[in-house]
Amino acid sequence: MSEQQSLDIKETTAAAAAADPWYSAYADRTLQMKQSEIRSLFAVVNRPEIVSLAGGMPNIDGLPLDYLAEFHARMVRERGPKVLQYGSGQGEEPLRKAICEVMRPDGIDGNPDNIVVTTGSQQALDLISLILLNPGDVVLAEAPSYVGALGTFQAYQADVRHIEMDNDGLIPERLEEMIAQVRAEGKPIKFLYTIPNFHNPGGMCLSAERRPQIVEICKREHILIIEDNPYGLLGFDGDPIPAMQALNPEGIVYLGSFSKTFAPGYRLGWALCPTEFTQRLVLANESATLCPTTFGQAAVAAYLSEYDWYEQVQKYREVYRQRGEAIQKALEDFLPELEWTHPTGGFYTWLKLPKGIDGRRMQDRAIANGVAYVTGTAFYADGETGSDHVRLSFCFPTPEAIREGIKRLAKTIAEEKEELGLA
Amino acid sequence: MSEQQSLDIKETTAAAAAADPWYSAYADRTLQMKQSEIRSLFAVVNRPEIVSLAGGMPNIDGLPLDYLAEFHARMVRERGPKVLQYGSGQGEEPLRKAICEVMRPDGIDGNPDNIVVTTGSQQALDLISLILLNPGDVVLAEAPSYVGALGTFQAYQADVRHIEMDNDGLIPERLEEMIAQVRAEGKPIKFLYTIPNFHNPGGMCLSAERRPQIVEICKREHILIIEDNPYGLLGFDGDPIPAMQALNPEGIVYLGSFSKTFAPGYRLGWALCPTEFTQRLVLANESATLCPTTFGQAAVAAYLSEYDWYEQVQKYREVYRQRGEAIQKALEDFLPELEWTHPTGGFYTWLKLPKGIDGRRMQDRAIANGVAYVTGTAFYADGETGSDHVRLSFCFPTPEAIREGIKRLAKTIAEEKEELGLA
Repeated sequence: MSEQQSLDIKETTAAAAAADPWYSAYADRTLQMKQSEIRSLFAVVNRPEIVSLAGGMPNIDGLPLDYLAEFHARMVRERGPKVLQYGSGQGEEPLRKAICEVMRPDGIDGNPDNIVVTTGSQQALDLISLILLNPGDVVLAEAPSYVGALGTFQAYQADVRHIEMDNDGLIPERLEEMIAQVRAEGKPIKFLYTIPNFHNPGGMCLSAERRPQIVEICKREHILIIEDNPYGLLGFDGDPIPAMQALNPEGIVYLGSFSKTFAPGYRLGWALCPTEFTQRLVLANESATLCPTTFGQAAVAAYLSEYDWYEQVQKYREVYRQRGEAIQKALEDFLPELEWTHPTGGFYTWLKLPKGIDGRRMQDRAIANGVAYVTGTAFYADGETGSDHVRLSFCFPTPEAIREGIKRLAKTIAEEKEELGLA
Repeated sequence: MSEQQSLDIKETTAAAAAADPWYSAYADRTLQMKQSEIRSLFAVVNRPEIVSLAGGMPNIDGLPLDYLAEFHARMVRERGPKVLQYGSGQGEEPLRKAICEVMRPDGIDGNPDNIVVTTGSQQALDLISLILLNPGDVVLAEAPSYVGALGTFQAYQADVRHIEMDNDGLIPERLEEMIAQVRAEGKPIKFLYTIPNFHNPGGMCLSAERRPQIVEICKREHILIIEDNPYGLLGFDGDPIPAMQALNPEGIVYLGSFSKTFAPGYRLGWALCPTEFTQRLVLANESATLCPTTFGQAAVAAYLSEYDWYEQVQKYREVYRQRGEAIQKALEDFLPELEWTHPTGGFYTWLKLPKGIDGRRMQDRAIANGVAYVTGTAFYADGETGSDHVRLSFCFPTPEAIREGIKRLAKTIAEEKEELGLA
């Protein structure tokens, strides 16, 4: 941390303390929570004249609304007092059984007894952190990693160590080196957090060759793996590489979500857990919310059993494939001199900026030019690394808007280079 | 803690450690979480031959299902892509505005900007604990207090101090004495947690005279009040005594819930916060779940604005009034020699057992006789105090079932007395 930043934080803290009569009552962990760079962008990027390549909102316009309207009505009319009542802290059994079917394309043969339904997979991350993290414990994560996970780890005062990736995902040798280094420091490593498919923000997949290697290293070192897989079914060309979970079910917590393959509005995700871990997660779930939404669970379970949900997933794949191709083509046309990742699924491309350009510094200019992105610093625990990259989301805007957005980004970069004298 | 209990816990711990390969990775707080006595009862009390006076499930059979079915269908058809999308971490504005109307009968003139929508008010309790509690910090609570709140405080390793109540609720002098005692120990007091209306499990209300006294004490001592009010609108005879929140909005977090006045199945509650506290809670909410269910929020907001929700509340009042009268009458008829509370609203009566009878010891006999209750120990942080009381819920069974349940309870107590030689 630079001296200026340290001063900035002290000033912010003093101002916050003066403004907030309850400041002195806050727990230590609270003073570490800060608004994510993505969330603070949201107010700006929702303006209609901006092409937002910033947010990660899924594109759900293709949902079968007439069918959904009909089945919601039927569900309320026929089972209202049940689906509007409290439910189980683990989640309702029909949904847990249906989830096992949803995990099959990932190569997982899951047991409903080991599934805990959560309020989005974000809550699973939160509860797993609650269960595992004492202040100062080490969490291993990819470099870069998902901003929402990093925020949660930070709220529990974890010491996050980032591990290098390449186009095949997390590098096993770098993982081994980091484990050795942390062990030498005498600090406890609580888990490896990884997004093996269509990484957020990186876009790459962990290769089939590396999956057993990563599992083997963590097994040998007795490190739990949190395998976060919200995008796995959204490969442009078909089902994903089989999940690591299948290689070591008692050593991996696998996280799934309905937010991208169905819709985020119910806030439902799940964790498939090692057997004994399941009960801990149920207890934590009850302590946090008593139970996940019964109504939402009934709706998702009915959708999964009545509707051809896999066909809907295939429609989504096509939507994102078109958008993924649009962003690649636009980057080739407008920014051919730069480097970026070439995802085969998911929502994101990771763009390396020209030498000397800082994504944070350029942001106001980008907004003024009508395009928004998220600077790479959001995806590192220190909030410093990553200013030389930006995350570009291609999930929400139309292909035409994406092309226009990249054109504006190219203009922005050109202007920034000129101002900084980087010819 | 007795020596035997200490041994029991050590044995349980050793067994858990042997069975669970991840035991050594758990955070300190996790080892304090245990299944609540209520939750572990649930498997038993759902058997149809048992009259359950144990659970706190609201009675929602009277909901207007045809209307609800129609408006859910309309909502999905007309606004599907919006209500099924992600939302704001603070909660959607139409719902926050509607919540201000719902709080008016409580005497509250709230500002939507100070409201944070949460996944049930249980989650508000969880996030407030996350924000405020370092391990060992003191939380003040009534004696007895809500089991779900105690579980959450325990998960954050709080030191809970119970304060005596009488039929007018929390006793101001006892509160002052406890504050002085804790201050003398040099420990930080983070908040007072209180349920002023139709207390769970006590059934009593904090009197109008005492409300300003409690507020004044906490203001003077700079102690935040968490005013939990899930039952306030469910007085048998009308609106509640005005909330404490109105007496000191910047010193009180007021918690409300739709679980009892509408339905629990959406898992939606809210916190009305002191101004600066609001942003902390929004950040914690985002870290925990990104946002509350957009779909559920849209449904509740539509219900509140389109439907005569207050008329529905009045119907619920009548349902609970009948049940409340049924349990009072049955207690007078079958257990006239005992003492219990006489609530004028809510879900619960608090029954003192005959001298020498232990509610936990008697529980198996009660189940065998076809009636379930929750022993008072569930409502004390030490898990020990309160074995001489039971909580009787009158919210869910019919008046006839309630009468039968109390008859069975009287038989159980008589048998227990006989076996113990307590004539």
